[in-house]
Amino acid sequence: MTLLEPNRDEMASQHWVLSLSCQDQPGIVHAVSGAIVSARGNITESQQFSSADTGRFFLRLQLQTDAAREEVLAALQPVIARFGLSWQLDQVGRRKRTLVLVSTAGHCLNDLLFRQRSGQLPVEIPLVLGNHAVLGDLAAFYGVAFESRRITDADSRTDFERRVLEAVDEHDIELVVLARYMQILSPELCEKLRGRAVNIHHSFLPGFKGANPYKQAHARGVKLIGATAHFVTSDLDEGPIIEQNVVRVDHAATPAELMSIGQDEECRTLRQAVTWLAEDRVLLDGARTIIFR
Amino acid sequence: MTLLEPNRDEMASQHWVLSLSCQDQPGIVHAVSGAIVSARGNITESQQFSSADTGRFFLRLQLQTDAAREEVLAALQPVIARFGLSWQLDQVGRRKRTLVLVSTAGHCLNDLLFRQRSGQLPVEIPLVLGNHAVLGDLAAFYGVAFESRRITDADSRTDFERRVLEAVDEHDIELVVLARYMQILSPELCEKLRGRAVNIHHSFLPGFKGANPYKQAHARGVKLIGATAHFVTSDLDEGPIIEQNVVRVDHAATPAELMSIGQDEECRTLRQAVTWLAEDRVLLDGARTIIFR
Amino acid sequence: MTLLEPNRDEMASQHWVLSLSCQDQPGIVHAVSGAIVSARGNITESQQFSSADTGRFFLRLQLQTDAAREEVLAALQPVIARFGLSWQLDQVGRRKRTLVLVSTAGHCLNDLLFRQRSGQLPVEIPLVLGNHAVLGDLAAFYGVAFESRRITDADSRTDFERRVLEAVDEHDIELVVLARYMQILSPELCEKLRGRAVNIHHSFLPGFKGANPYKQAHARGVKLIGATAHFVTSDLDEGPIIEQNVVRVDHAATPAELMSIGQDEECRTLRQAVTWLAEDRVLLDGARTIIFR
Amino acid sequence: MTLLEPNRDEMASQHWVLSLSCQDQPGIVHAVSGAIVSARGNITESQQFSSADTGRFFLRLQLQTDAAREEVLAALQPVIARFGLSWQLDQVGRRKRTLVLVSTAGHCLNDLLFRQRSGQLPVEIPLVLGNHAVLGDLAAFYGVAFESRRITDADSRTDFERRVLEAVDEHDIELVVLARYMQILSPELCEKLRGRAVNIHHSFLPGFKGANPYKQAHARGVKLIGATAHFVTSDLDEGPIIEQNVVRVDHAATPAELMSIGQDEECRTLRQAVTWLAEDRVLLDGARTIIFR
Repeated sequence: MTLLEPNRDEMASQHWVLSLSCQDQPGIVHAVSGAIVSARGNITESQQFSSADTGRFFLRLQLQTDAAREEVLAALQPVIARFGLSWQLDQVGRRKRTLVLVSTAGHCLNDLLFRQRSGQLPVEIPLVLGNHAVLGDLAAFYGVAFESRRITDADSRTDFERRVLEAVDEHDIELVVLARYMQILSPELCEKLRGRAVNIHHSFLPGFKGANPYKQAHARGVKLIGATAHFVTSDLDEGPIIEQNVVRVDHAATPAELMSIGQDEECRTLRQAVTWLAEDRVLLDGARTIIFR
Repeated sequence: MTLLEPNRDEMASQHWVLSLSCQDQPGIVHAVSGAIVSARGNITESQQFSSADTGRFFLRLQLQTDAAREEVLAALQPVIARFGLSWQLDQVGRRKRTLVLVSTAGHCLNDLLFRQRSGQLPVEIPLVLGNHAVLGDLAAFYGVAFESRRITDADSRTDFERRVLEAVDEHDIELVVLARYMQILSPELCEKLRGRAVNIHHSFLPGFKGANPYKQAHARGVKLIGATAHFVTSDLDEGPIIEQNVVRVDHAATPAELMSIGQDEECRTLRQAVTWLAEDRVLLDGARTIIFR
Repeated sequence: MTLLEPNRDEMASQHWVLSLSCQDQPGIVHAVSGAIVSARGNITESQQFSSADTGRFFLRLQLQTDAAREEVLAALQPVIARFGLSWQLDQVGRRKRTLVLVSTAGHCLNDLLFRQRSGQLPVEIPLVLGNHAVLGDLAAFYGVAFESRRITDADSRTDFERRVLEAVDEHDIELVVLARYMQILSPELCEKLRGRAVNIHHSFLPGFKGANPYKQAHARGVKLIGATAHFVTSDLDEGPIIEQNVVRVDHAATPAELMSIGQDEECRTLRQAVTWLAEDRVLLDGARTIIFR
Repeated sequence: MTLLEPNRDEMASQHWVLSLSCQDQPGIVHAVSGAIVSARGNITESQQFSSADTGRFFLRLQLQTDAAREEVLAALQPVIARFGLSWQLDQVGRRKRTLVLVSTAGHCLNDLLFRQRSGQLPVEIPLVLGNHAVLGDLAAFYGVAFESRRITDADSRTDFERRVLEAVDEHDIELVVLARYMQILSPELCEKLRGRAVNIHHSFLPGFKGANPYKQAHARGVKLIGATAHFVTSDLDEGPIIEQNVVRVDHAATPAELMSIGQDEECRTLRQAVTWLAEDRVLLDGARTIIFR
């Protein structure tokens, strides 16, 4: 697990979020809380879960201390070693550097950018990449850099994906958001972004995978339509689910109306998933996610 | 479309529900409302829908008149002939004769029987048939006849289904409710009960068809679980959907807890579908349902 | 009831929405549908309601015809006279001219402008008026004129309201939307905008009227927070309710977090109300609204 | 805080729930988890909350250990003393002894009794007390004792309340559930049952307090109706809220229909509150509740 570099303006007392997982066994909470006490920390929020499916133990806690990051880490080190912890320590509220991929539909991008600017989404978006140019002015309005490259064949797709990886390096990207990007990522890119890329699918998965879910929903005559935010994996629409929402529709709604109604759910579902990811509230437990809300 | 026999205690003014469908064309509403006016009727509720998918027109209206049923029918007859109407005329509030099929889980049956007795469900249940005996005392408490026959092989299944059809005849059954009956009906029985049988499936279809949907839902890690009431067809869990509901769950819920949480949604979803069916609010438009709420 | 002037580009076949109300009595539907037939109209959507509270009858229908507006009106005239109808006839899909009033919070305005531009909101917004200037650039991005005047005392308030009425005249405004305008309108202005002005209140009315509803909600410890779109009347937060939504919150949410969570509900609630108003789906029945969805 | 007596059949390993609160300060979690480790306990579930409103800290955790209750308590004793903890230690899954008060409406009682019998509600109901006799047969079907005494004046009310307190003593009642009891409790009884009595109110509080909330809701024209489970206090409908739910309604619903629709929400809201109370998931923070779901 990577170690994130916090801003170095250490204040008298700082707020940290520690998330960790390991094989479940007695004494973890006590050992971790002991390390925190020895680093003069006060635990302000704590959630844990023991998975009966995988036998893993998950813990997320927030702590306040006047100790520097190094001191907190030094105190945790023996516990990390003893229990074989996968862990992450970050500052509460630090905005994750986020790359957004888009195509032509602007509702999710608009929602993300508006909320980033109004301070309700704890991310910093240095760049939006599109396979069409149409959303460039929306990005520009919010003062966010925008690049577009058309994808028309295998080569231009490879080129686009190369630019994605470059941008991830260039901007120290921690989170990649597919905001109705509508293209399938190559298995190689999926692998490289594993655990860091989230997609919004415009149906309530596992129903209506693949193309045109609103058309499928209309044909099947469902009474609720939904949206699903999930980790990107090479199995299309099969990645671990982070968040889902639904909304009621009736027989009179055309596929186009379903699309319009559903966009709301897409926005709020993606935004919620991005928020939780940025706050280190999402942990992976096999094919499922633990959400520490 | 069958013609239902109303109770013969004609009052000074009666309340009727007329539902009909035909190929869409101009003048239907005017012709129907003209027939109603000529039978001294006042339209108290009306809903219509033109299906772009099938080109069918659907109308449901309620009317009050002091005319007898025969007089209303006589007035409608030319309109029926002219537009080739499929139609149904029934008394508002008449309780549909309903057969309930059950297995061992009692939550849906309890809900139906409690609400029937408290006057909130416009059905009359003369008989409950189970493939186990365990729900007999619940039916008895509500004063409803109960029979059980075990299904252990093809012969006993045939025997059970023969009893279903007998009971439908015996009790003039208009609606068959599979209240967690958990057995697949034979294609022959599905055909004979077409448009008259409703099943509750304990997932949000089309997700998690077949056995153990709560276990499937847990494995997939969905964030909402649901229930679907649908017409019974020979395609398992593929019949036209009448109603669906979902409820939020989190990562900590075991399959058993999902089941407990989901039972609520099953009860309210099935009860809603049964109410709409009993009130002639459900019309078939190909593989989809029109719900005139 | 005012008569709206449609665009004059009469096409071969046009789609009209007719909404009307009168004292309930037999024969209205037949008379109206007869007039429509005589104007070669086909009814494509129809909803009606008889209010037990007020004895009023309400009808909204959509019709398609190759007849000109005058011909439809001429056919309706005897029915209007006979039943004393309040009525309105407009083109389906015509965008209502809408004035938006704002203060400093931009979420509702952003939502309205984004959806207007993407064609999902059937309104045309010629002007946004604010009592602060901060939302001017948002309006500019969407190419909408923006004016601001500070309200600091009774005189500047009177001045602001005079400008509202001027703008209503200047732009033939049909709908005034208070998108978190946060100022109380004078009784005179309320009266002049009666039935044409909608406000979004950030609570589930009748709970938490007045200032700081999120703070009130936190103090009371409610488990759901909500938003209410209602007609503006001189009784603060007492106008007829058009739409409401709620969302679940927990004990950990601070008033600031409630505000952030609730903004979503405000946006969708206001947008839904504006859509229904623009589509002539909202009728007044005393202190209650009829919504023909 | 009272100390509950668990069943004495100590098994090799038992599951305990510990809930506590105190003034917030550093080191609580570490001290508590240390005591648990020293009693050979493994923490299987843990939730905490620091209230910015009251400065109180709240913790609920579940632990498994082969130590006897006395040993766990002995280990906790120094921590209790040091931090001045209010605390409670109980067996996970122990069914709380619950007294139910009813009047004539049976939906909530039916729901509670059905779920108690099917093992989904962790309570044991030794007695139902009614101010009418009509629900006696429902209680009898579920094998639960039932007593009724009419309340017609101040004396009979005093008599009823005296019987409530007697029954609380007789049956070691831990929880009193007002399942649509419809009577106001005297301030004395409220005080004696403080923190142990839950009421279901058939509106979304703080809207529509007092009598006939469905009638009030109809008159105000709200678009959602709801139910609220709250602690009983001498301030009518003002006690701390435990759970709330709402359901959508439309203009056509009469007060009687609102009542029928709302009963569902009443059942699930009350049942959820009772479950959380029985599982020690509800803690009081001034006028608000902390719910550790």
